[in-house]
Amino acid sequence: MKLGVIGLGRMGGNMVKRLRAGGHEVVGFDVNPESERDVESMEQLVDKLETPRIVWVMVPAGNPTDTTIDTLENLLEDGDLVIDGGNTRYTDDHRHADSLAAKGIHFMDVGVSGGVWGASRGYALMVGGSEEDYNRALPIFETLKPEGADGLVLAGPVGGGHFAKMVHNGIEYGMMQAFGEGFETMMRSELIDNPAEVMTSWREGSVVQSWLLDLFARAAHDDPTLRNMPPVANESGEAKWMVEAALELGVPTPATASALWARQTSRGGGDDTLRVVSSLRAQFGGHVTQQ
Amino acid sequence: MKLGVIGLGRMGGNMVKRLRAGGHEVVGFDVNPESERDVESMEQLVDKLETPRIVWVMVPAGNPTDTTIDTLENLLEDGDLVIDGGNTRYTDDHRHADSLAAKGIHFMDVGVSGGVWGASRGYALMVGGSEEDYNRALPIFETLKPEGADGLVLAGPVGGGHFAKMVHNGIEYGMMQAFGEGFETMMRSELIDNPAEVMTSWREGSVVQSWLLDLFARAAHDDPTLRNMPPVANESGEAKWMVEAALELGVPTPATASALWARQTSRGGGDDTLRVVSSLRAQFGGHVTQQ
Amino acid sequence: MKLGVIGLGRMGGNMVKRLRAGGHEVVGFDVNPESERDVESMEQLVDKLETPRIVWVMVPAGNPTDTTIDTLENLLEDGDLVIDGGNTRYTDDHRHADSLAAKGIHFMDVGVSGGVWGASRGYALMVGGSEEDYNRALPIFETLKPEGADGLVLAGPVGGGHFAKMVHNGIEYGMMQAFGEGFETMMRSELIDNPAEVMTSWREGSVVQSWLLDLFARAAHDDPTLRNMPPVANESGEAKWMVEAALELGVPTPATASALWARQTSRGGGDDTLRVVSSLRAQFGGHVTQQ
Amino acid sequence: MKLGVIGLGRMGGNMVKRLRAGGHEVVGFDVNPESERDVESMEQLVDKLETPRIVWVMVPAGNPTDTTIDTLENLLEDGDLVIDGGNTRYTDDHRHADSLAAKGIHFMDVGVSGGVWGASRGYALMVGGSEEDYNRALPIFETLKPEGADGLVLAGPVGGGHFAKMVHNGIEYGMMQAFGEGFETMMRSELIDNPAEVMTSWREGSVVQSWLLDLFARAAHDDPTLRNMPPVANESGEAKWMVEAALELGVPTPATASALWARQTSRGGGDDTLRVVSSLRAQFGGHVTQQ
Repeated sequence: MKLGVIGLGRMGGNMVKRLRAGGHEVVGFDVNPESERDVESMEQLVDKLETPRIVWVMVPAGNPTDTTIDTLENLLEDGDLVIDGGNTRYTDDHRHADSLAAKGIHFMDVGVSGGVWGASRGYALMVGGSEEDYNRALPIFETLKPEGADGLVLAGPVGGGHFAKMVHNGIEYGMMQAFGEGFETMMRSELIDNPAEVMTSWREGSVVQSWLLDLFARAAHDDPTLRNMPPVANESGEAKWMVEAALELGVPTPATASALWARQTSRGGGDDTLRVVSSLRAQFGGHVTQQ
Repeated sequence: MKLGVIGLGRMGGNMVKRLRAGGHEVVGFDVNPESERDVESMEQLVDKLETPRIVWVMVPAGNPTDTTIDTLENLLEDGDLVIDGGNTRYTDDHRHADSLAAKGIHFMDVGVSGGVWGASRGYALMVGGSEEDYNRALPIFETLKPEGADGLVLAGPVGGGHFAKMVHNGIEYGMMQAFGEGFETMMRSELIDNPAEVMTSWREGSVVQSWLLDLFARAAHDDPTLRNMPPVANESGEAKWMVEAALELGVPTPATASALWARQTSRGGGDDTLRVVSSLRAQFGGHVTQQ
Repeated sequence: MKLGVIGLGRMGGNMVKRLRAGGHEVVGFDVNPESERDVESMEQLVDKLETPRIVWVMVPAGNPTDTTIDTLENLLEDGDLVIDGGNTRYTDDHRHADSLAAKGIHFMDVGVSGGVWGASRGYALMVGGSEEDYNRALPIFETLKPEGADGLVLAGPVGGGHFAKMVHNGIEYGMMQAFGEGFETMMRSELIDNPAEVMTSWREGSVVQSWLLDLFARAAHDDPTLRNMPPVANESGEAKWMVEAALELGVPTPATASALWARQTSRGGGDDTLRVVSSLRAQFGGHVTQQ
Repeated sequence: MKLGVIGLGRMGGNMVKRLRAGGHEVVGFDVNPESERDVESMEQLVDKLETPRIVWVMVPAGNPTDTTIDTLENLLEDGDLVIDGGNTRYTDDHRHADSLAAKGIHFMDVGVSGGVWGASRGYALMVGGSEEDYNRALPIFETLKPEGADGLVLAGPVGGGHFAKMVHNGIEYGMMQAFGEGFETMMRSELIDNPAEVMTSWREGSVVQSWLLDLFARAAHDDPTLRNMPPVANESGEAKWMVEAALELGVPTPATASALWARQTSRGGGDDTLRVVSSLRAQFGGHVTQQ
């Protein structure tokens, strides 16, 4: 089918390729004039689509997405459909849906997983919205998703897609932390000759078989001790939102949160906590810890 | 090749089947007279093997394994090889190896993963011991392991096999906890219609693709809210040992430990902690929490 | 000085007594007609005060506080001062301050600690607002606070008082959890005859000397094993808000959060997580955990 | 009464002063010839005491304590009493007691808290041993302990003293972590002008009143932001032992453990975990985190 895509960065660009390879007609726009955009403005993009239009928004969460949806609200018409496929916090989805609904414009939020591999492997899609809108955009989803039976779900009403993606990323954090803890424990033990080789061996027959383990094997192939990798990691926001959502829902998430905190700590979080600890020890122990 | 297997329970029994299907000649023994044992004593088992013998021990960790290895020490001869495939704590392996070595008997520890699925899928094997002994038993390992390139590793010297398996199980704990936290967060959210359906959809295209997710899909197929499953879980020992090993090595393992604690808590761990909390709140707040 | 106090519950009622004992003239109001209120409406309360008025609000956080401040906004005049001494979330303070400021009404938020003991011991007060307003209400603070040099602080601008109180309560959670973990560890050890006696002994000379330990000694005096206390605790909201604030600020708070989670777990949080764990174990281990 | 003290370092030296000030006759020995020792060998120390002798050992845990107790076993006689006041792991106490008991020598383990302040404030003492031995050494304990009703306890049989001290230190870790988390959260908030001033104000009237808070106020007096303190802390061993003991007893100790892990992390623990996380993110996200 025909659709507009706004945002032609790494994710958006790859998705457009997959959509076109699947037979869809895509009008692409990006604010960056050096992108492979088909039109030079959202106005032009909207003009090129026939009503009822479908516009897929794939820009950074927060201000860029807010601005894009605001602009679309002015340009689109009753019956058109906006799909936010970015990493918007689920709490923003209702605001977007409500302001669009005032003009009769439909809205869906889609959590997209798959990273750079999605182009070839297909993207796991989690959709929030009405069943009617879901069915309308189904041909698009069917092309973007992997070939098998899974990889696509109508998770719930508006907000549900991003909520599901947020939870997915929280789980991802916890799994990576678990693999990391295991790797480091083996790295420090004299009983393990080559931790990366052990982990790679688990790719078959073990309980921890997973795509992340496949990726680990790739990463460790040329750098088995991972010495070339800095011991720091940024947080992406989604695991934090999940821990916050869970706190409000009364759900303990220690594995997810500890993964998040490990990243925050690698960026200086916890330093002042340790200063308090060191200060107190100096007070009652009579000596200052040397750095 | 020809080998003896002691312990014909669920794991041992399945392994014997896989070994025989692979062309090996197995003499099986179990203390349980109702098992499908080939001989009625370890003496008979040893008699039926030609030197240098290989005996695979597959009995519960702790006392049963200690007793079995003690008995084998008396029955076997210089050059024979004992393989402990049970869930022995890695710290016990050197003791076993040393006492056997005094008589010239070789020893290897093998961590075995795969559960009830191993019979068909093959078992992931992590071996601790010398390269010489590893190569000697390689035909056995090749039959037990899955068909692909992975699933078998010489992890390190004696103790390394069980150490690697212990770490594997710790990671498994962390991964299951991560999936659990995500599921519960979705269960409590009004934005998710069917958490099990969402999780099942992640089996393709997502970052959290894994065998555990496949198993979840099986479990949730007939009971999507898992209401038939009690909210309790026992600890198996291995995750605890991993956290302890990591503590001694200076490795923080919050994801692994929180998974372990969740299980301990489900069995009453933490109750007295809460009694202290409630008592203190009653003291300064002037009211007692109602149960 | 003369002031109005709205909310004559346990906290408010005690504070009024302490204020009157300190020579202040208090006009008290409570929605409950059976309270010891001096007037029957906020209108009457406002009428009884001379401008510039001071009104201390001591009602439950959330809707009751919102409603009270809304009403005061209509009744008070330019130059009057509203003090919110309840457990309002710090993120609400600016909203209250801004809407009052539109009519020239001043606002301060005060975090109050001390529980039922505050009446005799004095209350620790953390104030958020301008230095000018702080100095204006200083005679009130001086009466409410304990007698020594500490117990009162101008923490920062509007919101700072409740933020400081929130952090105080988070620390309180962590400390109680720490005492609880220690108590339970001793309860389960055969090496400790009487854990409560050990903890009570720490009230002098030890590093963990604290008021909470004094309260523990009181609680344990008649019930040394705390068997009469249910192993459950509710969360009050403030520790949750602190963990959320810290998450946004990039500060890991594992001790605070684990204390919060222990309480959530005692109320069923984590149950579905364990159901997932048990389901997965049943899938690969072939047996269901018995409750 | 008359006693020998082995180990005249900071702790031992201060304790000897307090004992002498309390009227006891102390024969002091230290391996360091520059210490203020009264004798030049343990032989001389033993010779200077009358039977039944009491010897207080106050040397570093592990090898020095093992060696000292071994030597005393050879020098002392039936009915003499050895008191280990160092930071020995509780699991070593039975070994010491048993080997001494073979010669009829009595043994007690005493956990000593109080740090450099103990000299003036008195030491909190937790004793493990028999009631008979406890009563025999009571005059010594009475002098070392603080003046009030608390500060001394017969915690249980041999091992109980060090177990109680270990738990005490675990709680201490948790409390310090809690204060640290609160301080850092306030340090990063724009709503708090001076976090150290806020914390200092809590010394009266608040729920978190404690000796540690008094020490914090001292530390922060000249360095309110603690910038002169490095963001690192060493672990002392005891909190680790407590977490391990609790793991074996089935007691979740997340607050204690998180405090320990924060220290391990400040010394590089967790670095390889983050390398795994970064490697995996690079694999599926297509970019490497910059340090």
